[in-house]
Amino acid sequence: PDECPLAACVNILAPCRSVYRWQGKVENTTEIPLLIKTTRACYAALAARLLQLHPYEVPEIIAVPLVAGLPAYLTWVATEVLSSP
Amino acid sequence: PDECPLAACVNILAPCRSVYRWQGKVENTTEIPLLIKTTRACYAALAARLLQLHPYEVPEIIAVPLVAGLPAYLTWVATEVLSSP
Amino acid sequence: PDECPLAACVNILAPCRSVYRWQGKVENTTEIPLLIKTTRACYAALAARLLQLHPYEVPEIIAVPLVAGLPAYLTWVATEVLSSP
Repeated sequence: PDECPLAACVNILAPCRSVYRWQGKVENTTEIPLLIKTTRACYAALAARLLQLHPYEVPEIIAVPLVAGLPAYLTWVATEVLSSP
Repeated sequence: PDECPLAACVNILAPCRSVYRWQGKVENTTEIPLLIKTTRACYAALAARLLQLHPYEVPEIIAVPLVAGLPAYLTWVATEVLSSP
Repeated sequence: PDECPLAACVNILAPCRSVYRWQGKVENTTEIPLLIKTTRACYAALAARLLQLHPYEVPEIIAVPLVAGLPAYLTWVATEVLSSP
């Protein structure tokens, strides 16, 4: 996240097992969930960058909203992230 | 998820420790969080199925909304899940 | 959560690796994500208590909304949590 900070921080969770069907076959693989904190303004640029970097053709890039948060923390996220216009 | 696909995929996270009060006693148990991806249309049927399968009388079945996601991924989830009318 | 129950339950996830910039330096630390279930009415009191207890000056305290859940579970959360007026 150092060159062009599209996210304030990332939590790299412990490996998980993922079960899903892909092209008719049930896959059972090990994956690493990432919790990436950014702003709405930066989400699109972040998602585009993740798509470039991710080895999958269709990676799971999804966003959940925050409805509240420690004000100082939310301010920190906003200042950390390069808020594109 | 093979017979009647109510979800597109599940992430079976690493075991976690859960602390809660149940019938007046503080419980401290090991649980496995599951992140299950489905559509709003299928949520009720998925939740009913989970309730049947889960060993607890009152399992934690909760749903958080997505506010954005990789279009190709969201389309994949929708096509994977048996979208009940 | 025993003295003054501001939350119904907490899942203490497996340790994760967190990468973020703090005061100009990229930090790469081990952290323990907590998933704490409470009600909107209790969120502010819970967040204040977490801020008191947490060793960080600006801890990541954020809240995501639930859009659905097992009715019996949601009722259990509400009755467990000291719902401040």
